Amino acid sequence: MESMLVIIRLALCLLALFQLSSGSGVNVWPKPRTFSWPNPQATLLSPAFTIAAPNHTFLSSAVERYLRLVHTEHHFPLVNPSVNLTPSNLPPLRTLSIVVSDLKAPLQHGVDESYSLSIPTSGPAKLTANTAWGAMRGLETFSQLVWGYPSVVAVGVYVWDAPLFGHRGIMLDTSRNYYPVKDILRTIGAMSANKLNVFHWHITDSHSFPLVVPSEPDLAAKGSYGPDMQYSPNDIKTIVQFGLEHGVRVLPEIDSPGHTGSWAEAYPEIVACANMFWWPAGSEWADRLASEPGTGHLNPLNPKTYQVLKNVIHDVAELFPEPFFHAGADEIIPGCWKADPAINFFLSNGGTLSQLLEIFVNSTLPYILSLNRTVVYWEDVLLDDNVKVPTTVLPKEHTILQTWNNGPSNTKRIVSSGYKTIVSSSDFYYLDCGHGDFLGNDSQYIAGAKSKDGGSWCGPFKTWQTIYNYDITYGLSKEEAKLVLGGEVALWSEQADRTVLDARIWPRASAMAETLWSGNRDEMGMRRYAGATDRLNEWRYRMVQRGVKAEPLQPLWCVRNPGMCNTVQGF
Amino acid sequence: MESMLVIIRLALCLLALFQLSSGSGVNVWPKPRTFSWPNPQATLLSPAFTIAAPNHTFLSSAVERYLRLVHTEHHFPLVNPSVNLTPSNLPPLRTLSIVVSDLKAPLQHGVDESYSLSIPTSGPAKLTANTAWGAMRGLETFSQLVWGYPSVVAVGVYVWDAPLFGHRGIMLDTSRNYYPVKDILRTIGAMSANKLNVFHWHITDSHSFPLVVPSEPDLAAKGSYGPDMQYSPNDIKTIVQFGLEHGVRVLPEIDSPGHTGSWAEAYPEIVACANMFWWPAGSEWADRLASEPGTGHLNPLNPKTYQVLKNVIHDVAELFPEPFFHAGADEIIPGCWKADPAINFFLSNGGTLSQLLEIFVNSTLPYILSLNRTVVYWEDVLLDDNVKVPTTVLPKEHTILQTWNNGPSNTKRIVSSGYKTIVSSSDFYYLDCGHGDFLGNDSQYIAGAKSKDGGSWCGPFKTWQTIYNYDITYGLSKEEAKLVLGGEVALWSEQADRTVLDARIWPRASAMAETLWSGNRDEMGMRRYAGATDRLNEWRYRMVQRGVKAEPLQPLWCVRNPGMCNTVQGF
Repeated sequence: MESMLVIIRLALCLLALFQLSSGSGVNVWPKPRTFSWPNPQATLLSPAFTIAAPNHTFLSSAVERYLRLVHTEHHFPLVNPSVNLTPSNLPPLRTLSIVVSDLKAPLQHGVDESYSLSIPTSGPAKLTANTAWGAMRGLETFSQLVWGYPSVVAVGVYVWDAPLFGHRGIMLDTSRNYYPVKDILRTIGAMSANKLNVFHWHITDSHSFPLVVPSEPDLAAKGSYGPDMQYSPNDIKTIVQFGLEHGVRVLPEIDSPGHTGSWAEAYPEIVACANMFWWPAGSEWADRLASEPGTGHLNPLNPKTYQVLKNVIHDVAELFPEPFFHAGADEIIPGCWKADPAINFFLSNGGTLSQLLEIFVNSTLPYILSLNRTVVYWEDVLLDDNVKVPTTVLPKEHTILQTWNNGPSNTKRIVSSGYKTIVSSSDFYYLDCGHGDFLGNDSQYIAGAKSKDGGSWCGPFKTWQTIYNYDITYGLSKEEAKLVLGGEVALWSEQADRTVLDARIWPRASAMAETLWSGNRDEMGMRRYAGATDRLNEWRYRMVQRGVKAEPLQPLWCVRNPGMCNTVQGF
Repeated sequence: MESMLVIIRLALCLLALFQLSSGSGVNVWPKPRTFSWPNPQATLLSPAFTIAAPNHTFLSSAVERYLRLVHTEHHFPLVNPSVNLTPSNLPPLRTLSIVVSDLKAPLQHGVDESYSLSIPTSGPAKLTANTAWGAMRGLETFSQLVWGYPSVVAVGVYVWDAPLFGHRGIMLDTSRNYYPVKDILRTIGAMSANKLNVFHWHITDSHSFPLVVPSEPDLAAKGSYGPDMQYSPNDIKTIVQFGLEHGVRVLPEIDSPGHTGSWAEAYPEIVACANMFWWPAGSEWADRLASEPGTGHLNPLNPKTYQVLKNVIHDVAELFPEPFFHAGADEIIPGCWKADPAINFFLSNGGTLSQLLEIFVNSTLPYILSLNRTVVYWEDVLLDDNVKVPTTVLPKEHTILQTWNNGPSNTKRIVSSGYKTIVSSSDFYYLDCGHGDFLGNDSQYIAGAKSKDGGSWCGPFKTWQTIYNYDITYGLSKEEAKLVLGGEVALWSEQADRTVLDARIWPRASAMAETLWSGNRDEMGMRRYAGATDRLNEWRYRMVQRGVKAEPLQPLWCVRNPGMCNTVQGF
């Protein structure tokens, strides 16, 4: 008798899974690790519905936000949900109770983000989490289980959930083009809805220095695009606070010693090769002065360099509570340092470029660590062909290397050297690729459209499927895989600014969000991107309704007719 | 003495040209055919500035619009203009007088759009045109010569201008995804600012039928995406009127007999293979039912087909005054017609697919002509490998073929057969390419990003340079070239809707706009895309300020430092 019951339960469970995977509009994105809804039913969200939660500065703000959302969102699934929109005669849901065991856990890498959510057919729903941040993830899940007008909520649901990777981020470059604060806030809000937790802010670069550094005000005053294109300490406070309210860390990057042309507006004496044409007439590619137009590297031999840089690092650490500090160190271009007379003197006396970088790292890394920060560098600092430092200079316990070249093979090189890594492979995770190049007179364009992959160095365009299917621990041993903290999609802003921000990021970042949260394979270990199409469609429309101008992935007809736009029928 | 004066004038002129081409922020886009500003100066636009113009329903509306614009736009060039922003002590400009010789000329293909504009250093400015539509082009030019706060205007300017091609358009597909009326109006407004003159509206397709046809209301009632995603007769009136006020023709396309799946919601009996899976399991690519998901072809053997279709054509001709009617006729997929029993009977008795198309064309084309329309078809009707009609069926004087395959070689095939053509080569002018594909479970994506050109059939992404450099009469004789009416960039909407409309179209459509208006070569016959970069940057920012969310092409740093982001210095 009991075994019969087990079989019936299993059958019901499979039926529910089938219904959910074959076009239910009631989805949670990213898909939870376990989601059980054996008997799909819904009930009214009581107009008096409320959320009971412990007192916590940031969680309380999130509770207030989600309470407003579930009462007012009124999302209508594009695909008919497998349950009736009209609620059953079950009692309306009046309460969601939140229990958090450790209210003091700070938002930092590795914090416990797990939660469990149970919405019974009667009585209060319950959200249990070890930390406030896990509770925020559960609130998001709850909000996606509410739909319709009047609001109804899925009942008979049990969710246990936790991320596969602790670091799930978006990198945004605000130097090449500027983004207003409100656009950054909207992006962080959308990240939270996708359970992403790190906003990696590539604040400065050669093109502009938008960050107002209190002890070095001239850097922004002279190096930003203008007074209306700066981030003041108050702006930073707003953004960091908004991040905390959304469970999103704000990880600042001050890229140096390369990518620092804009520093020369305030301090020309500390920047080599500033404001020069990037690729001198008649010279070889190897002799260019910068990786792209916009020249300038900090001069590692000038003591003034460290005086200014340490002031910047100090103030950034004050402004950003985040325990990681990203120090850049990518793309040291030999020609730039060689163009500086003092540096050239050093080199012509037997010094090497790598020694210069070592001097630079040794003069800055200890200072960053002294501020109680873990330093993140781009992989170049260790893996560059020409200019790099030995591992002895980079303490493994305090250094993370972010990889962007050569896909899985560089990830392997980093972790097999014993370093932790964050994966931003340009072959998979660069959101700007394949969308043209920004060079002004590149004659390769004359040859026609097909000569370059969409006209960009990292083309073609990375589709959401490309992003979704990337396995960031591919080819690693179990031990090595533990050193992969997670991943970040990256938007470099040569050809992006506020006008296109949402569409460049969403919903492609959502694809990575699910892969890093619960994976890209189903219970049988099969890739699940086909089924993800329908779910991501639904989620994209919900994001648009929430004010995020995410791109459409298909004609609405496909969204409404799941499976009909596949290549092979039957999914 | 006189020859000395000529030399001095020539030198001044070259100096002015140099100044203008090397980073002046005062530009007109598209570049006029002749633009003379030998002694760059500016003066205040008097607060009492007004425009004197003859009475003309549409021109008067344009005058009012431009008057408001020049008083309120206050564009600040990003690149310092070669003239001072502070005006000279010349008298403020108080009047622009417009003279039009033929106020009755209707807006249609081939209408004279030439104008001349003279803004002297004192006294009224004068805009002379043969038609109201030419005067509108001149007003746009005038508006781009005004900048700053308070508004100043370039003086000592003389412009003569006229387009190289009469047909300069944008095609928008509103069936795969819907666009609200206000987005269409904004697009038409931006077209006018770029001196584009044809909004080719691909209204219906297999995915939805958004057009409310008065005599066949069920088509939209049942075939649209919903009551909030339709275009009512009033909407059409608004759009056509808006087009006339902006000198933009609104050219409707009702695609048939292919691409008509949505018609089956109202009339299943007239549509073959409707609502079927597009690529039957196990069948060859050649045996698919549609060019892409969304099946359905009108049945050419059912008399009811023509009854419904003629009602649609009749009403569309009533709603749209435009003398061209686009009847589609692209992508007849053999498998669809073969899937219909009646058609299959015809085929199995010796009939051919091409005969079916001939029956269809012979049953509709004469009716379209009887409504005093020139018919436009996609090239397929004549050039398709499998299903096509002989030239005898398509009267050359009343038929235009729009080309989209095989670049210059299909253009050549069309015009050498004696047909007029509109060029929309998918290799150059398709704005949707290289941005992913919309199929739900295409396993080619697993292979990684590089396996397909940005994941789309017509990838890679068409950069603005690719578009700018395309010569639509390449390889044609002088006589053949005369049959090329012009070109259209096309936005197919599988992966576009209102959220991304502006960025997909602009500023890439601006690139075509200049090429078709005044060419892509300078006075010496050299390609001018390098210099165009700086001008297009400036124009992009001006469009953004006018409310069009055009993509950025470069970091702002490049825009402000013209030439510094080139591959080779010296432009």
